[in-house]
Amino acid sequence: MPEIPSTVTLQQVADAAGVSLATASRVLHGSGGRSPTEALRARVEDAATRLHYVSNGPAQALARSTTSIVGLIVHDIADPYFAAIAAGAMRAARAEDLMVMVASTFREPKLELDYVRRLRTQRARAILLAGSAFTTGEFLTELGEELAAYTARGGRVAAIGGHGLGVSAVEPENHEGGRAAGEHLLALGHTAIGVVAGPPQLAAVTHRLAGFREALGPLPCQVATADFTREGGRQATLALLAEHPELTAIFALNDLMALGAMAAARELGRRCPEELSIIGFDDLPTAVDANPPLTTIRLELTELGAAAMSLVLAEETQPPRSILAPATLIPRASTAPAPAPASS
Amino acid sequence: MPEIPSTVTLQQVADAAGVSLATASRVLHGSGGRSPTEALRARVEDAATRLHYVSNGPAQALARSTTSIVGLIVHDIADPYFAAIAAGAMRAARAEDLMVMVASTFREPKLELDYVRRLRTQRARAILLAGSAFTTGEFLTELGEELAAYTARGGRVAAIGGHGLGVSAVEPENHEGGRAAGEHLLALGHTAIGVVAGPPQLAAVTHRLAGFREALGPLPCQVATADFTREGGRQATLALLAEHPELTAIFALNDLMALGAMAAARELGRRCPEELSIIGFDDLPTAVDANPPLTTIRLELTELGAAAMSLVLAEETQPPRSILAPATLIPRASTAPAPAPASS
Repeated sequence: MPEIPSTVTLQQVADAAGVSLATASRVLHGSGGRSPTEALRARVEDAATRLHYVSNGPAQALARSTTSIVGLIVHDIADPYFAAIAAGAMRAARAEDLMVMVASTFREPKLELDYVRRLRTQRARAILLAGSAFTTGEFLTELGEELAAYTARGGRVAAIGGHGLGVSAVEPENHEGGRAAGEHLLALGHTAIGVVAGPPQLAAVTHRLAGFREALGPLPCQVATADFTREGGRQATLALLAEHPELTAIFALNDLMALGAMAAARELGRRCPEELSIIGFDDLPTAVDANPPLTTIRLELTELGAAAMSLVLAEETQPPRSILAPATLIPRASTAPAPAPASS
Repeated sequence: MPEIPSTVTLQQVADAAGVSLATASRVLHGSGGRSPTEALRARVEDAATRLHYVSNGPAQALARSTTSIVGLIVHDIADPYFAAIAAGAMRAARAEDLMVMVASTFREPKLELDYVRRLRTQRARAILLAGSAFTTGEFLTELGEELAAYTARGGRVAAIGGHGLGVSAVEPENHEGGRAAGEHLLALGHTAIGVVAGPPQLAAVTHRLAGFREALGPLPCQVATADFTREGGRQATLALLAEHPELTAIFALNDLMALGAMAAARELGRRCPEELSIIGFDDLPTAVDANPPLTTIRLELTELGAAAMSLVLAEETQPPRSILAPATLIPRASTAPAPAPASS
C-alpha cells in the first residue's frame, strides 16, 4: 500500500493567501461561518491552485457523511446498450458536479449485491441500477435488504427497468415495444415467426416476449433462448432455422441478438429481408449501419440514463416515483412482406 | 446533505460474534496483530453480514491513506472504442477486488484536468488516462504537474496512447497501423485517395496519418478533418467527394468515421467497394456487421484496457514502462481493386 503523506496543508494555503485558517476552510471546504468576500475567495483559490493543494477527500466525506460519487451498476459496459445509458447518466451528473463510478456485474447477480455493498461503504451519494433485474427470488430479497439499509441512511437509489425493489425507477415500455414488434410482423403478413430471446431470468426478456405474444394472439411462435449478445443471437437463429426452416420472420429481443441473427442468415444463404425478416429491440447507434439497416424498437437510451439520474437528484419525495420511457417502432430495411409460400 | 448515522458499530459485531473488538477489527479491517483462526474469521464475518455492518469507507481510507478505487478517464463512454477499453480495465480490476470509476471528458481538455484533481482528492489508488492525448502544450503542462503531484504521494498512473507525460503507457501502434492501411490501398491499385480525419490535436490522428503518408510516399492524398465520430466521418466524406469526385478510396482514421463514410457513399449513390473502397481503424465489435463488412486496422481494445491496469498494479518500478499494442490489417469486403479509370 503506497504511503500518501499530506504534502500541502490547509495552513500553508492560508499563509500563502494571507488569510486565517478559518477563512481558507470556509472557501475550500464550505464550512460554516460568514461567507467570505469575492476578493478573499479569489486569493485563497489562487493560493490553493498554485500550491497544488487538494482537500482530503476521505476526511471531507467523514465530515459531510457523503461524497460526490454516484454509483452506476450495469451488466457490461462494453454492451452499447449500457454504454449509452452510462453516457446519459454522466452528462446529467456533470451538470451537478458529480462523478459517476461505473461497475460491471458481467451479469453475475452476486456481483451486483457486492457492488451495492461497496458503494454503501464508499458512502456514495446515490446508486443507479441499470439493466434488467435478475428475477430470481433469493437474490432479489438480499439486494432489497442492502438497498433498504442504504436508503435508511440517506442514500438515494433509482433503477432502470422493473427491479421489483420498491425503488424509484425509469421503466422502458418493454411490453408495449414487444407488442409493436408483433403487430409490425403481422401487418407484413408473416405467420411463421421465431423469437431469439435472452435469458428468461431477465425482466426485459419476459416483458418484451409477453407483449409480443399478446400481439400474436392465437398464432404460435417458436422461441430459442441464448445469451443476450450478438453471438447468442447467431447461435439461437442457427438452431431455430435448422429445426424450423419454414420461418419467414424473426424477432430478436435486443439489437445485438438481431445482428447475430443477420449473421446467421448470411451464413445459411437466407436473404434478409426477401426470405427472412428480422426485427430487433433498443435501436443501438449502429443499428442503422447494419446490413440491411435494422428495423427495431427504439428506446432513447441516453435519456434513460439521464432520467434515472434526475430521479436521484430530485428533492426527496416520500413514495418511489416511476418514469415511463416510450418504445417506438423504427421501420428500416430488414423487414418486408412475407414471401409467398413455395408451391410444394 | 443527508445525514448518515452509523447504525451498526464494530463493537456490536464483536458482541454478536462473541469475540473481542480487536479480533473483529483484525478480521474486517485487516488491522495488525496475530492473524485470526479460520473459525473466528467465519464467526465475525457471519455476524457482520447478519447485522448489515459496513465498515466506514472514508475512515478506512484515511487510516490506509488510499482506497480501492481506480479512476479511468475516457473521452466518451458511449464511443465503443472507450467502452471496450473500459470493459477490459474492469475485468482486470475485478480480479484484484478493485472498483473502477469511469469519467467522461466529452473531449474537453479542461475536464480531464478537473477529473484528475478530483481523483487525487478521492485518494484513488490509480488513474488510467485512456484515449489519445490532447497535444496542446499548455494543457499538457498543467496535466503533467497534477499527475506529478499525485504520483509523488504514491498514486499510480498509466496512459493509453502517447500522452507525452512521462508516465507508463500502453502504446497502440498507430503509426504502423496507418502505414498498413496505406500499403493495403496501394496494393489494390488506388492512386486517388482521400483521408477523413479527426481533430489534429489528438495524437492518434497525427500518428495514424503520418504512418499512412509514409506508405504513400510521393503520392498525394486529400485530407478532410471533422469530429472523430460517425457524423464527422459522414460530413467529411460528403465534403471530400464533392470537391474530389475522382477519389476511389478513403481511409477513415477510426471505424466510427468509416461507418459515416459508408453512409455518405450510400447517400451519393457511390457503391462500396466497387466504386469506392473504405478502410477504417480500430476494429470495433460492429465493424464486421457493417454494410459491407468493414476492412480495418485492428487494435485489441479490451486488452489495451487490461494492459493499462496491469501497468498500475505491477510492483513499483522506477522508470515508466511502455507496452506496445499491435495494429493489424483485417481485410473484409469494403475494399477492392481500384476501378478502371473512366474513358473521357
